Amino acid sequence: MTSRRVMGRAAALALAACRPFDQAQAGAGSPSALAAPLHAQLDAQYDQVIADLVRITETPAPPFKEAARAALFAQMLRDAGITDVTLDAEGNVLGLGPGREEGPVFVVSAHLDTVFPEGTPIKVTREGERLMAPGIGDDSLGLASLLVWARLLEANAITTRQPLLFVGTVGEEGAGDLRGVRYLFTKGAYAGRIGAFLSVDNADAGRIVNAGVGSRRYRLAFKGPGGHSYGAFGIVNPMGAMAEAVRGIHAIAVPTAPRTTYAATVVAGGTSVNAIPDLVTLDVDMRSGDPAALGQLEAAVLAAADAGVAAENAARSTVAGAITVEPQLIGDRPAGMTPGEHSLVTTALRASQAAGFAARLDQSSTDANIPMSLGVPALTIGTGAGGGRTHSLDEYLETGRQRFLAGLSVGLAIILDHTDAAPR
Amino acid sequence: MTSRRVMGRAAALALAACRPFDQAQAGAGSPSALAAPLHAQLDAQYDQVIADLVRITETPAPPFKEAARAALFAQMLRDAGITDVTLDAEGNVLGLGPGREEGPVFVVSAHLDTVFPEGTPIKVTREGERLMAPGIGDDSLGLASLLVWARLLEANAITTRQPLLFVGTVGEEGAGDLRGVRYLFTKGAYAGRIGAFLSVDNADAGRIVNAGVGSRRYRLAFKGPGGHSYGAFGIVNPMGAMAEAVRGIHAIAVPTAPRTTYAATVVAGGTSVNAIPDLVTLDVDMRSGDPAALGQLEAAVLAAADAGVAAENAARSTVAGAITVEPQLIGDRPAGMTPGEHSLVTTALRASQAAGFAARLDQSSTDANIPMSLGVPALTIGTGAGGGRTHSLDEYLETGRQRFLAGLSVGLAIILDHTDAAPR
Repeated sequence: MTSRRVMGRAAALALAACRPFDQAQAGAGSPSALAAPLHAQLDAQYDQVIADLVRITETPAPPFKEAARAALFAQMLRDAGITDVTLDAEGNVLGLGPGREEGPVFVVSAHLDTVFPEGTPIKVTREGERLMAPGIGDDSLGLASLLVWARLLEANAITTRQPLLFVGTVGEEGAGDLRGVRYLFTKGAYAGRIGAFLSVDNADAGRIVNAGVGSRRYRLAFKGPGGHSYGAFGIVNPMGAMAEAVRGIHAIAVPTAPRTTYAATVVAGGTSVNAIPDLVTLDVDMRSGDPAALGQLEAAVLAAADAGVAAENAARSTVAGAITVEPQLIGDRPAGMTPGEHSLVTTALRASQAAGFAARLDQSSTDANIPMSLGVPALTIGTGAGGGRTHSLDEYLETGRQRFLAGLSVGLAIILDHTDAAPR
Repeated sequence: MTSRRVMGRAAALALAACRPFDQAQAGAGSPSALAAPLHAQLDAQYDQVIADLVRITETPAPPFKEAARAALFAQMLRDAGITDVTLDAEGNVLGLGPGREEGPVFVVSAHLDTVFPEGTPIKVTREGERLMAPGIGDDSLGLASLLVWARLLEANAITTRQPLLFVGTVGEEGAGDLRGVRYLFTKGAYAGRIGAFLSVDNADAGRIVNAGVGSRRYRLAFKGPGGHSYGAFGIVNPMGAMAEAVRGIHAIAVPTAPRTTYAATVVAGGTSVNAIPDLVTLDVDMRSGDPAALGQLEAAVLAAADAGVAAENAARSTVAGAITVEPQLIGDRPAGMTPGEHSLVTTALRASQAAGFAARLDQSSTDANIPMSLGVPALTIGTGAGGGRTHSLDEYLETGRQRFLAGLSVGLAIILDHTDAAPR
């Protein structure tokens, strides 16, 4: 559908559309964060949203290979009525709607990438009210949400005070290490000009993430001379250093609030059962909502690696060479928080409650980490009414009409409120 | 060349050929373990041996894929005058020469397989007196040695007291785990009918291996529930059990005589930096010339694995499941020894010395481990005059004529002596 179709009714609807969401339940039907007339328009978009979801999901976006989905999403933004759509150098899709005022932009964002490697078969299937496919909730739903909101804003000729920037980011997942949103905030055309950031990235519209869990990830490369398992018996073995390091890491005490965690996650080394290896690598994941706690944890992990090396070099012969460790930073997501009293947070909680969700604050590691760490107000919200098995091939999304639309209403209500939306 | 060509001279040469090797140096030219007339025939075979070496080496024989080289070697044995050549069910090549008496056979063996995986480019190159190619010494040289000895025995119409069985074995290297020789001694047509065993398997004719180092190799699979590195923090991690196991293994005290060794050699586990793994595997190599010491070491390693599991289950939560370990035996080479006073050993030492080598006893892990462990007299000897970089792509073999032929003379002298060789 195009925005032109409902344009004639725009003036009449616009006033109703921009009413505060906390009066929204007064409208007919199920709870919504939107006034009844606008919710009715959202309801009319249900089939289109499902069609968009399927189309986006079935366009693969493996890590570091989001180009095909980016091209699709850019075209879909144009079809939604956004005329100024571009791709930046990192691969993010940017769609700008002008504001009534110059000044910092309000970013509404979802991520393009999935965790699924190239070649993963992706076909959306339906089972009752569930749609099933890898990535359908994480984050095809976020992208489809941006599109329907853009269509409704355009259809109702709604203007926003700040310029509104719809963004599809690359590299949110895993090794992507937030590269898209990092570029947006530090190098792209809008660096330094973003006033607030709303990330749409989960299937539960009751979950408002205002705390960004930071992470530091290392690959510890333990190196040694290696040698024949029989002939060179007695020389140092990087296995020993790695094992002592794991032991040291596992003994680190961490605070429980904010939740601070670590894990030795991936290990690899050696080529043959009859050779002392010359290299063993160990990947370590560390997370905390508190940058100071994360820094202390990181120092303790690196000290454990050094202690493992020292213990191995003291325990066995270094005549053929000693063990060393080279820590490589393979992941770096800064921690941050948007205070609970910030209007973006209170607005989100009220919108979620108005739509009938058990609204609650949570912490996670999402695109919002970057603005949070830079002191830019930011949230990550859900837009669905549930789903599960995220990051697995069994991922699913609940799409029962009423609750699904209630979930979709929350984000649009936040946008309307935060931007002092008004009819053109 | 065919054996027929020199057949006419056979009667005259045969007596000289069978003279004891310790009088051999009296002949013209460089030291040899053979009487001068037979050494002169060996010398005449030099170019053929080099040609055989190149042909065998350039016929790939990756682990578990020795069929092409086996077919070639079978044909070459037939060309050498052995009429009864067969392949057994395991893939070994067997070439039988009848003895003057019925009874146990004397096996002279080399192995067909290399350590190099399928697809490894193998082309023999020359640099002065060195021939270079992966596997050229280990064990193309052994196979080529068997061929020239067979040709000379046939050419001189020499009969042996025992039936003489030339064997090309499969699976000597690494994961092959001696499968060829194991089949020969325990399941094949000659099981229970082998009186002595001579393995030809290194490029140093001064090295007489009369002690078989036994090995036991395990893959220890540490399993646990796995989970999200952040969400599931606090649950048991198989990394912890593996690390404690390595630590326990590295603390095991072993005897120095006979040399007894262990090594944690290959480790693998985990799929993503943000997931606690559900599986970590650790390969452990254990070796000793003493079966009792090897058994004690094995028990200590398995106990260390169990202790690692217990420590991890005690240290973290098992609410999602506990850590277990499944030890899988992936290598089993029995230890054994042929006493230094056995005639096979003293004969080998004298032959090596007669050829001008610094003859010495050594221990290793070779095809001879199996007969040694069964109480069958067995040796592994070298036939070359040096080489190096075995098991690497840079492997080379010294082929300077006089020393190379001296090296080749040793094994034939042992055969002649051990079988009471006589003219037909």
